[in-house]
Amino acid sequence: MLINRLTTADPEFDQRLDALLAWDASVNDDITQTVKAILADVRERGDAALVEYTNRFDHRQVASAAELVVEGDALEQALARIPESQVAALREAAARIEAYHQHQKQDSWTYTEANGTVLGQKVTPLDRVGLYAPGGKAVYPSSILMAAVPAKVAGVPEVVLVTPTPKGELNDIVLAAAAVAGVSRVITVGGAQAVAALAYGTETVPKVDKIVGPGNIFVATAKREVFGTVDIDMIAGPSEILVVCDGKTDPDWVAMDLFSQAEHDEDAQAILLCPDGSFIDKVYQSIEKLLPGMERKGIIEVSLANRGALIHVRDMAEAIALSNRIAPEHLELSVENPDDYLAAIRHAGAIFMGRHTSESLGDYCAGPNHVLPTSGTARFSSPLGVYDYVKRSSIIHCSPEGASLLGEVASVLARGEYLEAHARSAEYRIIK
Amino acid sequence: MLINRLTTADPEFDQRLDALLAWDASVNDDITQTVKAILADVRERGDAALVEYTNRFDHRQVASAAELVVEGDALEQALARIPESQVAALREAAARIEAYHQHQKQDSWTYTEANGTVLGQKVTPLDRVGLYAPGGKAVYPSSILMAAVPAKVAGVPEVVLVTPTPKGELNDIVLAAAAVAGVSRVITVGGAQAVAALAYGTETVPKVDKIVGPGNIFVATAKREVFGTVDIDMIAGPSEILVVCDGKTDPDWVAMDLFSQAEHDEDAQAILLCPDGSFIDKVYQSIEKLLPGMERKGIIEVSLANRGALIHVRDMAEAIALSNRIAPEHLELSVENPDDYLAAIRHAGAIFMGRHTSESLGDYCAGPNHVLPTSGTARFSSPLGVYDYVKRSSIIHCSPEGASLLGEVASVLARGEYLEAHARSAEYRIIK
Repeated sequence: MLINRLTTADPEFDQRLDALLAWDASVNDDITQTVKAILADVRERGDAALVEYTNRFDHRQVASAAELVVEGDALEQALARIPESQVAALREAAARIEAYHQHQKQDSWTYTEANGTVLGQKVTPLDRVGLYAPGGKAVYPSSILMAAVPAKVAGVPEVVLVTPTPKGELNDIVLAAAAVAGVSRVITVGGAQAVAALAYGTETVPKVDKIVGPGNIFVATAKREVFGTVDIDMIAGPSEILVVCDGKTDPDWVAMDLFSQAEHDEDAQAILLCPDGSFIDKVYQSIEKLLPGMERKGIIEVSLANRGALIHVRDMAEAIALSNRIAPEHLELSVENPDDYLAAIRHAGAIFMGRHTSESLGDYCAGPNHVLPTSGTARFSSPLGVYDYVKRSSIIHCSPEGASLLGEVASVLARGEYLEAHARSAEYRIIK
Repeated sequence: MLINRLTTADPEFDQRLDALLAWDASVNDDITQTVKAILADVRERGDAALVEYTNRFDHRQVASAAELVVEGDALEQALARIPESQVAALREAAARIEAYHQHQKQDSWTYTEANGTVLGQKVTPLDRVGLYAPGGKAVYPSSILMAAVPAKVAGVPEVVLVTPTPKGELNDIVLAAAAVAGVSRVITVGGAQAVAALAYGTETVPKVDKIVGPGNIFVATAKREVFGTVDIDMIAGPSEILVVCDGKTDPDWVAMDLFSQAEHDEDAQAILLCPDGSFIDKVYQSIEKLLPGMERKGIIEVSLANRGALIHVRDMAEAIALSNRIAPEHLELSVENPDDYLAAIRHAGAIFMGRHTSESLGDYCAGPNHVLPTSGTARFSSPLGVYDYVKRSSIIHCSPEGASLLGEVASVLARGEYLEAHARSAEYRIIK
């Protein structure tokens, strides 16, 4: 069996689905101890510790932290070294991501009450943000655009990119993406030591207010540990796609859309929900036909066998209900009239509507962010966006008359909470 | 010395200020282990474990979890038992909090490109939220309003309040505040066991999507542990106020405003920045004069002596720069023209503008939220708001022509990342 086949008619369907969706995100205690030691050491010794860990883990021979910094010109030069088609694609993607995220900008606002009291909220971009980009095998320039462009749209003055360079090998496309995205500085460090440097600051690495971007288990654990000292984005689980299909899309398209998720890694999850059993058979045949020719066949095979599923549902209403239960990172509504279902979708990171909207278009260049909530966290989390790079401050400016009126109310409530100084502070402002 | 006195002219000022601001938020390993055991037990055994822990920690004799639930009528009845002035004040505060938070509502949005491609974002309220309200000594009905009203404005269908009732004693004003705030159900459980019940669900307590509200170290540690399974608000540190004064406010007002923060607890922090040394002397005299008569004198005394400060600054520009460095939870601009400084304020949870706007007005009834970022986290965090009770889903609906154009770009970028299935999935949509 290339992929699990389930039907909601099975009396044990619920348990089977739960087993398939289960993902153990528990933290390994050994890794946590290792990470804590690295964090404490970089916090204590700064650049010296950062250089030591970088030389050890990335097999480098760096004498000082200054050698870890890549600036301005080097980024632009990388743009000149990569193929013109890639430069054009990066620029087109960045422009579309910027256009989309402009819609997320929020302005400060105030309103004035009859007695002259002004209330509102001031929106301010973060001062400095750190982006983590994995190095080695998994080099994703698109992730640099997705993390950096919304920060620039938000007005963050300084975006610092950290990325490990095993044996010192810098990747041109990473630098090129950083240049296109407007990143100010790249520092070639990775792992928990890079997270520590961003969270606490060292002589060379500036302390940031927020750290975003994916990484391995050491990076994820380090981000979890420094959360509170700085802000972080969500800790991502394996990537997932849920395709809801009415049975009228080309089955090869559906199979390839499932593959496009499964090829990420062996834990990735690709699921199809369809009310048409014969269409499910056709998708299975497409999988059989297309899989042998795929470059990342080995990964896709494991992912589909362990975590993938073709699920036969009773009808489209049941498909939508199941989709809400799963709360997928990526939801493809591969149906004739996707608008008919949109209102009923409560939980999904991104909704890809209609047969032509493959998830991969959203991954790269449609405009919306590809950093999305995984493992059911779409129940309460949102795509990365401009709103993640600003914070708000309440504004309260009472007129003397307003302060007097509010003082009466605050006094009653404060005394009800036995907070006398609160009450008296309010009472001083009451006009007798 | 009742309160520390510093001047920025002191060559060691920076170290002194850092020492004063330092707050150790590190987590106690023993407490973490205790909390983890409780979480695992409630997750495993549900109601049975919840009843056992509640009987043990809250000194109760409850036979079944059903006895822990307080519903509809009981909340309304509590309203009838508290003084009319308190009911009126709660209702007035709730109405103002609601009016303010209405301004934070965000609508879903879409835009259509020339080729018919639709992009946008759908905003959906969370399904269910859990509020934690501490019991015992620290009963703050205002916190129930501040947490629940924005959830109702956001459109959250179900808000569940948990609160411990030591020896089973229910507090009428808590139930009354819950009634006014539109809370659907109160469950009389507390501690890590309450957080576990909300995060995992039991037979009696429904699983929620987000847990908000303050609690003791066990509650805070439990929230940190379940973060990811559900969302949480920030883990709050001790409360702080920073008063920036031009030296022309009544010194008694300033002293009482400092007291109103200090009376919260012995770790609370109250700091004054002022360029006028003789005014600082006057505030010191006001503290001397007013402190002996305060009901919470003991707490205020410890807080001011250990963590409070009157700081003499060179000028107002230095005061604003210092304020940004401190990133206070509450910032009072007790000056003639506070608008002159607003643009320069980058980091503050809430800004109280002008001499008449005491922090306590904002704590209870001005309208803005009193759940604010502490310990410098105003650098990257916002007041609790409607935005905390919704999540967003990206919408991407490509026209066939749009999918074809985007497919060309996605194909180049996907092949650059060696993700062939992504590329082919996009290429299927290219119109030849």
